[in-house]
Amino acid sequence: MPVESSFLQNLIQPADTKIVMIIMDGLGGLPREPGGKTELETAFTPHLDQLAGQSACGLTIPVGPGITPGSGPGHLAIFGYDPIQYNIGRGALEALGVGFELGPEDVAARGNFCTVDADGLLTDRRAGRLPTEESRHLVDLLCTIRVESIQFFLKLIKEHRFAFVMRAPGLSDDLTETDPLKTGVAPRPVTAAVAGSEKAASLVNKFLDEAKVLLAEKYPANMILLRGFAKLPALPSYAERFGLHAASIAIHGMYRGVSSLAGMQVLDTVGSTIADQFTTLEKCWDAYEFFYMHVKATDTCGENGDFDGKVRVIEEVDALIPRLTALQPDVVIISGDHSSPAVMKAHSWHPVPTLVYSKYARPDGIEKFGERVCARGSLGILPAMDIMPIALANAGRIAKYGA
Amino acid sequence: MPVESSFLQNLIQPADTKIVMIIMDGLGGLPREPGGKTELETAFTPHLDQLAGQSACGLTIPVGPGITPGSGPGHLAIFGYDPIQYNIGRGALEALGVGFELGPEDVAARGNFCTVDADGLLTDRRAGRLPTEESRHLVDLLCTIRVESIQFFLKLIKEHRFAFVMRAPGLSDDLTETDPLKTGVAPRPVTAAVAGSEKAASLVNKFLDEAKVLLAEKYPANMILLRGFAKLPALPSYAERFGLHAASIAIHGMYRGVSSLAGMQVLDTVGSTIADQFTTLEKCWDAYEFFYMHVKATDTCGENGDFDGKVRVIEEVDALIPRLTALQPDVVIISGDHSSPAVMKAHSWHPVPTLVYSKYARPDGIEKFGERVCARGSLGILPAMDIMPIALANAGRIAKYGA
Repeated sequence: MPVESSFLQNLIQPADTKIVMIIMDGLGGLPREPGGKTELETAFTPHLDQLAGQSACGLTIPVGPGITPGSGPGHLAIFGYDPIQYNIGRGALEALGVGFELGPEDVAARGNFCTVDADGLLTDRRAGRLPTEESRHLVDLLCTIRVESIQFFLKLIKEHRFAFVMRAPGLSDDLTETDPLKTGVAPRPVTAAVAGSEKAASLVNKFLDEAKVLLAEKYPANMILLRGFAKLPALPSYAERFGLHAASIAIHGMYRGVSSLAGMQVLDTVGSTIADQFTTLEKCWDAYEFFYMHVKATDTCGENGDFDGKVRVIEEVDALIPRLTALQPDVVIISGDHSSPAVMKAHSWHPVPTLVYSKYARPDGIEKFGERVCARGSLGILPAMDIMPIALANAGRIAKYGA
Repeated sequence: MPVESSFLQNLIQPADTKIVMIIMDGLGGLPREPGGKTELETAFTPHLDQLAGQSACGLTIPVGPGITPGSGPGHLAIFGYDPIQYNIGRGALEALGVGFELGPEDVAARGNFCTVDADGLLTDRRAGRLPTEESRHLVDLLCTIRVESIQFFLKLIKEHRFAFVMRAPGLSDDLTETDPLKTGVAPRPVTAAVAGSEKAASLVNKFLDEAKVLLAEKYPANMILLRGFAKLPALPSYAERFGLHAASIAIHGMYRGVSSLAGMQVLDTVGSTIADQFTTLEKCWDAYEFFYMHVKATDTCGENGDFDGKVRVIEEVDALIPRLTALQPDVVIISGDHSSPAVMKAHSWHPVPTLVYSKYARPDGIEKFGERVCARGSLGILPAMDIMPIALANAGRIAKYGA
């Protein structure tokens, strides 16, 4: 039961302590066969097990019971933000996902190439899943469009998909979508979903008119569809909310974007291995009070159904834990943003194994870090949002309430 | 997740049952050394263990995850009140803390003697931490002040500190403080923080003018500062909220005050040992339906870093449990208002071991009452506010909801 953020904010006090949060994306799993072990339970993790033995452990629920989170809400929750209050719209997520540095005024959307016939009616909503290489040229072509000196940015995702960003002050993202979600009809014009969005709707429609002209001879990609218009939600920063000078060690755009949204300084890593990320942690250790490190490959393996691969990634992280403990962090959080069981090949709703280590944690004496031992830990089965207040308390960063 | 108090209140029904709540202040603890046991886990507690074996056990969170409660909020929570909704202001707490019987209209503040120079500028905000014996005379002197036939009460806390209470109908506590929190400037006059507080502000300022005259020659204690103006929050009583005729067996002012706020009859104990408190329980057994007993020494030892002392106090309570069970209470709650681990020498945020005994409790079959077994108990890890409804249910005092 999280406390109100304003209540917590009033109790925040400074301290000379450091907190490290390692998020193994999609960490939670399921047994491969009846009676078997999960990915985490299977992995040989002597260092994580030792840390868990000295930690308070539990299972975190990112959004709510039975709710499968995307990476956005999953991260907001473990970062300590209400993932329902702060909804990152689809368009903004796509832009973050391709590493676009989305500004607070930018209106983003998901874009894709489509095919229309001579009458302008949709015949293929995905333009035959155009090869990525062909899309690249067309995206470059669309980038040349100018409407009333507004800046437009398009960034290829893959195949027929791209991120669309419109940059101008004061634009609203309350816009209807152009994709009618069926063929045989014309793409819809964008309309203002609420009063005040007319300017933005008009600009997008003018862009679409230009795009139609430029793509006229580019069959099958002779038109585009835009949906999921969204600006970034305005989040109170880690500095405002938790009094933390925070940094993010993430490789992929989406996680760099979400942590940047929380006001974390996004650090660049030389190389792209998990070990390289630990090197960044070591190099920047003195400069920040809070570090978020994102490990992507656990989720990739989970979504690919690669149980053994996910086990190996967890073991790779485990082998690097001594480099973390050598830094003598005051508080360590190890968790995931959601579960991605390999047997489901997808994100899932299952609560996520989580440990909070500090010398003031009440240790559960767990012998092996895993889902089922965490279910009996002293953190209980709790909202992911509750982890940051507990970590801050362990770091001496929350003052006593009342006398 | 507590139910709304109005919802609960509508279901309250009378029953011929008795509930006893024993609060060992700061009960929760931490191991003294890695891999060791907490204070409660260390203590030899055969009677508590037997009770726990027949009880539903759990860990209570007084205010919220990571929040370290003072004694006021910690008590309100285990009493069943929302400790954030019902905030006891600093001044009211100080007055309760010295055993002042604060009335519902009284405006209280923290007072302290200070030193000002010839120009009235602060040179020492604590008057050199005046010895308690000297303060006593000055407090008596200030008690002679009369302003517009209003009653003022001052009660020495210790050294330079005292509780200040102003008694008159209809006064507001929305007042600014006089302490500028730094030296080299004059104490501030009290002002109305909101419209409607002008009368109270004017009365306090007139009191301060008189105090200045009386203390003029009393260097270094030649002025006073007042802050934390607060009335008591108006709490629905135990009779209104839970239908309970309730009594409190507490020795110290603060806990007598908080229980009185909940409408409990505060009983006087002959002597001051825990055994004496059990005698009060026995003597008054027939007269009430609910008894709150407060054991202070667990917290005192915790705050002093006295691990062994805290263990001994817990064992002292344990040895008295047969006198409780001989009374055949229908429901027994054993818990704390917060944790005070000896290794931290302070209150802490850690959840508090709690048992609810009744013949209708679903027993967890716990063998030893302690933090880590409670973490796996059937009450779970729950808000402290939830304990009273569970106890009332066990006492047959909550009617069925719906048909």
